[in-house]
Amino acid sequence: MQYTFSENVQSLQPSAIREILKFTGMPDVISFAAGNPAPEAFPTEFIEKISAEILREDPVLALQYSITEGYPKLRELLKQRMAAQHCFDPNRDDLIITSGAQQANELACKVLLNKGDTLFCESPSFIGSLNAFRSYGVDLQGIPMEQDGMDMDALENAIQKSASPKVIYVIPNFQNPTGRVMSLKKRKKLYELACRYDLVIIEDNPYGDLRFSGDPIPSIKSLDAEGRVSYSGSFSKILAPGLRVGYVSAAPELISKITVCKQVSDVHSNIWAQLICTAFLEQMDMDSYLEGLHNVYRRKCNLMADGIREYFSPKIQWEMPEGGLFLWCTLPDEWDMPKFCTQAVEQYKIAVVPGNAFLVDESAESHSIRLNYSTPTDAQITKGIKILGKMTTSV
Amino acid sequence: MQYTFSENVQSLQPSAIREILKFTGMPDVISFAAGNPAPEAFPTEFIEKISAEILREDPVLALQYSITEGYPKLRELLKQRMAAQHCFDPNRDDLIITSGAQQANELACKVLLNKGDTLFCESPSFIGSLNAFRSYGVDLQGIPMEQDGMDMDALENAIQKSASPKVIYVIPNFQNPTGRVMSLKKRKKLYELACRYDLVIIEDNPYGDLRFSGDPIPSIKSLDAEGRVSYSGSFSKILAPGLRVGYVSAAPELISKITVCKQVSDVHSNIWAQLICTAFLEQMDMDSYLEGLHNVYRRKCNLMADGIREYFSPKIQWEMPEGGLFLWCTLPDEWDMPKFCTQAVEQYKIAVVPGNAFLVDESAESHSIRLNYSTPTDAQITKGIKILGKMTTSV
Repeated sequence: MQYTFSENVQSLQPSAIREILKFTGMPDVISFAAGNPAPEAFPTEFIEKISAEILREDPVLALQYSITEGYPKLRELLKQRMAAQHCFDPNRDDLIITSGAQQANELACKVLLNKGDTLFCESPSFIGSLNAFRSYGVDLQGIPMEQDGMDMDALENAIQKSASPKVIYVIPNFQNPTGRVMSLKKRKKLYELACRYDLVIIEDNPYGDLRFSGDPIPSIKSLDAEGRVSYSGSFSKILAPGLRVGYVSAAPELISKITVCKQVSDVHSNIWAQLICTAFLEQMDMDSYLEGLHNVYRRKCNLMADGIREYFSPKIQWEMPEGGLFLWCTLPDEWDMPKFCTQAVEQYKIAVVPGNAFLVDESAESHSIRLNYSTPTDAQITKGIKILGKMTTSV
Repeated sequence: MQYTFSENVQSLQPSAIREILKFTGMPDVISFAAGNPAPEAFPTEFIEKISAEILREDPVLALQYSITEGYPKLRELLKQRMAAQHCFDPNRDDLIITSGAQQANELACKVLLNKGDTLFCESPSFIGSLNAFRSYGVDLQGIPMEQDGMDMDALENAIQKSASPKVIYVIPNFQNPTGRVMSLKKRKKLYELACRYDLVIIEDNPYGDLRFSGDPIPSIKSLDAEGRVSYSGSFSKILAPGLRVGYVSAAPELISKITVCKQVSDVHSNIWAQLICTAFLEQMDMDSYLEGLHNVYRRKCNLMADGIREYFSPKIQWEMPEGGLFLWCTLPDEWDMPKFCTQAVEQYKIAVVPGNAFLVDESAESHSIRLNYSTPTDAQITKGIKILGKMTTSV
């Protein structure tokens, strides 16, 4: 049989990063290509203990069907935590559990955009979200990314030109792939534009709790007086991504529609994992837990940055992150970036992600590469950056 | 802000069963309205033991990001099991893990149908799947259900009339809500029609392993020589639904597209749960385990059937299931079925699901009700059926 796939998914391809990741399973390859949190930071003993308690004390709760909205106690704890961070207003928001922030972003798109409606995103941006949006046939428009976030003039210009502008998708903290933080000034401007042009903002904040230097900046959700912001959060980076637990906080009408779409997608998220997250929020001293996490991420980031300072050609521009998982490097214009990445993995066994993987049009030109410092070990970071450095000085 | 939702989801409503289920949380209400497997049959000690082993021996595997296709060992074991049941051919099929069969059905729809394309289903059918299909704006057409499955003449007629026939969705074993089994003759005819009119069949088989009497009938997938059948399976009814682990077996091109859509939906399914399912298939003596499960379901079904024989008015038609979770009763035409259901729950505190909840057009007439015997306790079944019986004789 010859399959005719639906128009929306016909051209949808597996993430280009997957091609790079194939190499990372090979022996001796050092991978800076992943987007995984630091495994040594997982509170494995805590999870082992809690899991045993859950399965001993109330196995049926952990194994039977549950409600789509998520475990009530977990929703309550998250509402309190989000309220404390001004990302949830009990008078005008609701919050449900999702299967990772990925599902929160996907479903917000599904309920808000018709095929052909415009969704604006940072360029470059997170490929997983871009593919989710593509799978609904939306008109995806990348807005150039500046040091302090999306170019607001370019955004307004694009909104004015669009026949059906609907949603702006941003990752304001330690953005994937650039590691950049959107300034408060731009957050305010973004919200103002959303109000002026009647748009919804999807604020994706998986890395927000991973700030290891500098001062936190208020979320866009905290500026929201009109119910225009759908805020996606996740346990993937602060607890463990294998659990697949995220959440979305937004106006009740929006949450209600997202809930119906979640029900038809997976009925509910794995309930054992929700119970683990509940115990995590209830029993863990969050401030000291996060401080421990920050120490791990800061150390690994500094280790990579020290290596770059020592070994990389001064022709490479790079940016010191204040949090998150990624460090963004830009090669000189005259270098062939894709060739550099291919050579790195095939000849030197160092995997990095070429910047064009994160563009709306993957065939467009990019001179940047994304380096991940959370997944490799300290020894791998030291060795890998030295090798990459040699490559940069011998081009 | 006034939200304008996408056209596909605008009219999408939470399942009507949810309204009934609200009552089931109230004290003293006996619920025959759920679709949950029997909680006393969960192998809780086994899961507790395996979970402890997993988290002790390889916590990072159980907590880190994993691949979209699912845990390789689990896929391998399922392929072997499906091959033994002729639901997987290693030469022309592939198989991936999904977040329940719900996700398998949803994604098969997403990749195969454009808005307005026709999907044919049994009428009545499983409301969760119908809502999933509705959420992609497909033209959903219900084909009348006969004792031995979908009316094949009506199906062929509807196919011929459709401008864009694409998919037939069926639950051939112990169908939800009727509990009926599609005959082999009709399975062959259905496949023949799919070949003649170039359609894909989504064969949803969550209850197939729950046959407690009569002889198994070959799956439609086992008749498939052309790669037209996408087979959805699940651990929800044989292990535990809270895990949210299902799978889909189909031609590699179809599986490949479903995989991309799964990636943008939830990246991968909870990996701890996948490891539990792996150990379950590896370590459990399946024949004797399933025999134990059948004993539980047969006993509860017989208990309900005995009560119906003793207490129900002879005006009520009902069907003795050979497996699954549901028993289907049809009230006399002159009775007001919705009123009967409302009275049952409000006055007599017995929750049942009105048959029209399972129709493509929920406002169409139905005289049937669905009774679930797997979730209530033996005592609840005995008491509840006696009360319902009194209602039927006093109408």
